[in-house]
Amino acid sequence: MTNTVTVMGLGLMGTALAEAFLKNGHATTVWNRSAHKADALVAKGATRADTAGDAIAAGPLVVLCLSVNENVREVLTAAGDTLAGRVIVNLTNGTPRQARELAELVTARGGEYVDGGIMAVPPMISQPEALILYSGSRRAFDTYEHQLGSLGTAQYVGTDPGLAALYDLGLLSAMYGMFAGYYQAIALLRTEGVKASESTPMVHSWVTAMMAGLPRQAEHIDSGDYLTDVSSLTNNAAGFPNLIEASREQGVSPELLIPFQALLDRAVAEGHGADGLARLVELLSTGAR
Amino acid sequence: MTNTVTVMGLGLMGTALAEAFLKNGHATTVWNRSAHKADALVAKGATRADTAGDAIAAGPLVVLCLSVNENVREVLTAAGDTLAGRVIVNLTNGTPRQARELAELVTARGGEYVDGGIMAVPPMISQPEALILYSGSRRAFDTYEHQLGSLGTAQYVGTDPGLAALYDLGLLSAMYGMFAGYYQAIALLRTEGVKASESTPMVHSWVTAMMAGLPRQAEHIDSGDYLTDVSSLTNNAAGFPNLIEASREQGVSPELLIPFQALLDRAVAEGHGADGLARLVELLSTGAR
Ligand SMILES: NC(=O)c1ccc[n+]([C@@H]2O[C@H](COP(=O)([O-])OP(=O)(O)OC[C@H]3O[C@@H](n4cnc5c(N)ncnc54)[C@H](OP(=O)(O)O)[C@@H]3O)[C@@H](O)[C@H]2O)c1
Ligand SMILES: NC(=O)c1ccc[n+]([C@@H]2O[C@H](COP(=O)([O-])OP(=O)(O)OC[C@H]3O[C@@H](n4cnc5c(N)ncnc54)[C@H](OP(=O)(O)O)[C@@H]3O)[C@@H](O)[C@H]2O)c1
Repeated sequence: MTNTVTVMGLGLMGTALAEAFLKNGHATTVWNRSAHKADALVAKGATRADTAGDAIAAGPLVVLCLSVNENVREVLTAAGDTLAGRVIVNLTNGTPRQARELAELVTARGGEYVDGGIMAVPPMISQPEALILYSGSRRAFDTYEHQLGSLGTAQYVGTDPGLAALYDLGLLSAMYGMFAGYYQAIALLRTEGVKASESTPMVHSWVTAMMAGLPRQAEHIDSGDYLTDVSSLTNNAAGFPNLIEASREQGVSPELLIPFQALLDRAVAEGHGADGLARLVELLSTGAR
Repeated sequence: MTNTVTVMGLGLMGTALAEAFLKNGHATTVWNRSAHKADALVAKGATRADTAGDAIAAGPLVVLCLSVNENVREVLTAAGDTLAGRVIVNLTNGTPRQARELAELVTARGGEYVDGGIMAVPPMISQPEALILYSGSRRAFDTYEHQLGSLGTAQYVGTDPGLAALYDLGLLSAMYGMFAGYYQAIALLRTEGVKASESTPMVHSWVTAMMAGLPRQAEHIDSGDYLTDVSSLTNNAAGFPNLIEASREQGVSPELLIPFQALLDRAVAEGHGADGLARLVELLSTGAR
């Protein structure tokens, strides 16, 4: 198994990736559009590639981490036939569609494509807490799993190159939802002088307790049987206006709550009042609005 | 210390409360508008009160659990002077303002008022996992803490009678936000055939990991210094459109995501791009929208 790797894109994340490869003893070639960002890595033992073409030519495994996938498309398009026989691992954030299009571009030129979603910030890279999701060519992933393991915990989620981005965005949605709820809670409580540091432990343990019920909700979702004897959509829809009203009365914007009320009301109007909250997944799944 | 208690309102929750008092050896008087709902409790040893007035007259501690606070207002207004010397513990869901108004009504008639927020479903009542938040008269809470402890873990949050409702609604906001994020994640992932039972453990551990950062965010909020070197509002605002775009492309409604994007964009437009996400609490706090 080869022990060399190329990293293209040396921003905050790309630099952390290159450092992790170096630290784990891989011969690392680096390239960045603005060349000076390679200096510190070269001082630590990396080899500088002067052009993107040289970078791709340097070895069989090429990891990209640029701002957006449009940048990746530019770089790979310019690379032309040098992609033949190369494994391209793209760790740039994007959508499933973008990943699938890049996979086509690379395979059409004789390369193999793996897409990745980094569920971590740069200081976490190389630690097991840094989860990186991969999808696309299984053969390529298996061949380079050892190298990729230098970056954190590598998890392969499927052959569809769009899957890693889908998981990535799914997990980010879950995170943003949790943050949105937390900010609403803290904004409400501090209107009466309760400090965030005081209320955060209570919010934390409450949300943790509520998360213990998610596997049960997952059963409802997978079975399509949403009937509940615990907390019906009707009751939730009836109680939710208190959140909006109390926010307004306390001078807190209810803007993040409004669409959830609308979704609850729609579920009840469509005749699902006796179902549990997990039914909302079906309403979200009925197409883009 | 007296060992008697009255429970008014024998719906799903009120019945669970009365059962918990009985189970813990308290002499329990029960009343419900529709009298038949008391039958099973009477069979278990409760004493039936024929009228609301009789129920309030039966003992010094009166626990109410009706649908909404408007019902509580009706019942207490009709009770008139029988409220004198009574401690009214209102466990009906409502807003801080409603709780404060009911406290005035009760104290004006010579009673003491405690408001409560039940952070549990009926089957959890009487177990320590059932958190019940109380606020209002400290003396009344201290006097009856032992009885109230029969219902679950009793936590007193302050003398302002509106505080329990504020905590209750704050915690519910946090829960709904977490649920909203979870539903978006599951809706996205199942567009490619990933079952909820497969993805839920990953979502669970990811959100748990992200929640470990909340105390740090609380420090930002309490200090008002939101500058971050981890994940800036600018970067979040720039990456968030991927979530909305990918949702649309996969046929998932982005309706729950839209207001968060708007909030991120507003934060950046107002010059806070270098700050971390916790800055959003300030934007929510600038008044109702
Ligand atoms: N930072 C994080 O916490 C984090 C976490 C997870 C995922 N990510 C993802 O990782 C990727 C990189 O993020 P980052 O934090 O490293 O961003 P960054 O610090 O802004 O770096 C961006 C990189 O992209 C390069 N680039 C931009 N446009 C280019 C073009 N047209 N051609 C060639 N190179 C171009 C930049 O080169 P120049 O130096 O020449 O401008 C730079 O190397 C993004 O997709 C991001 O979403 C980041
Ligand atoms: N169930 C839960 O999971 C849960 C969790 C936390 C908090 N809570 C809160 O607990 C409270 C009660 O909930 P629940 O689940 O017990 O509801 P429920 O089963 O619908 O019971 C409602 C109760 O309110 C009474 N009621 C309604 N209008 C009345 C009026 N005008 N005068 C007198 N009594 C009236 C009903 O009497 P009738 O039988 O005569 O209709 C019944 O006893 C609500 O505020 C709810 O938000 C419930």
